[in-house]
Amino acid sequence: MKGILFVMSGPSGTGKGTVCSRLLEREKLNLSVSATTRDMREGEVDGVTYHYVTRDKFESMIARGDMLEYADYNGCYYGTPKKSVTTLLEDGKDVLLEIEPQGALQVKKLFPEAVLIFLVPPSMAELKQRLLLRGRESEEEISRRIDASQWELRQAEKYNKIIVNNDLDACVDETIAYIAGVRKERKLIEQLMNEEI
Amino acid sequence: MKGILFVMSGPSGTGKGTVCSRLLEREKLNLSVSATTRDMREGEVDGVTYHYVTRDKFESMIARGDMLEYADYNGCYYGTPKKSVTTLLEDGKDVLLEIEPQGALQVKKLFPEAVLIFLVPPSMAELKQRLLLRGRESEEEISRRIDASQWELRQAEKYNKIIVNNDLDACVDETIAYIAGVRKERKLIEQLMNEEI
Repeated sequence: MKGILFVMSGPSGTGKGTVCSRLLEREKLNLSVSATTRDMREGEVDGVTYHYVTRDKFESMIARGDMLEYADYNGCYYGTPKKSVTTLLEDGKDVLLEIEPQGALQVKKLFPEAVLIFLVPPSMAELKQRLLLRGRESEEEISRRIDASQWELRQAEKYNKIIVNNDLDACVDETIAYIAGVRKERKLIEQLMNEEI
Repeated sequence: MKGILFVMSGPSGTGKGTVCSRLLEREKLNLSVSATTRDMREGEVDGVTYHYVTRDKFESMIARGDMLEYADYNGCYYGTPKKSVTTLLEDGKDVLLEIEPQGALQVKKLFPEAVLIFLVPPSMAELKQRLLLRGRESEEEISRRIDASQWELRQAEKYNKIIVNNDLDACVDETIAYIAGVRKERKLIEQLMNEEI
């Protein structure tokens, strides 16, 4: 049985990264490491957090069609090397991708069977507060991200599941319950397809 | 707020029609009446069960692009006039379509925000038994439908939700709970989009 491709996405600041880390601790999911042209941040590890590449290298990967999805997001490229994902799926391993909304929708077009989870904040005021508190971006940059989230929210209907990240533990539990439900559905379909009648 | 488009589909004999009738009794959902070229069956009403039209008429509707989806299924055309659906949605009314799997996937391509529910039998043996019992089709026709369901099951991953129709009441309850969840998600997104910050 082929693996399932889970894609975790949502507006910047909703806590995708933290939720994914928790999922990986508790669930049998394989992370596909993305490539990016953005600078490495403190605590990040090349080849683990991201593959950090130059714009030239990234653009040649795009040109060769090696990217499952990519986006120019906040002035940097982010993308998912295609092969790393398909190899895992064909091995029967479930994959978890954490990507921003533009990329998530690209993946859904290529893999309509991908399961897209859209993480949202309890309110936009809360989202802004979180972005301000983490202090990673300028106020202008934060305003730009809040603006971008309007478009992203309009696309939410294309996702398989919307989950609110209010309380982290509850959010992770809900995601795990959802993943379990999807796995059960896929197993059931597999059984029906293999039934001899 | 725009209405939500729910599409109920699944292999022939899984009980789509019965489940939809129950849903309409219990939920605020609007049925879009499909057009078909198949003969009217006992108990069916023109303009209510289906719009019964000739092949010529049906083909001219296709040619004018008036069909949201259509399929040549078991030798007859079945289709959904586009306008009847979009008018309801723009009025803020949730729509329920009951269509066979080919058509359901066509709708998903045109309306990625449509919510596709795939109804499956508890087993293929049970499905065959139900088709035999209802005695509507010949044994050859039943075999053809069972064969077609293999392709249909392979497309199940493209649906938003898979529900087993084992016990009718439980199946209807599960569908209603799922619909309630989707409505809640859409309302939440709407709130986030309208929030002033």
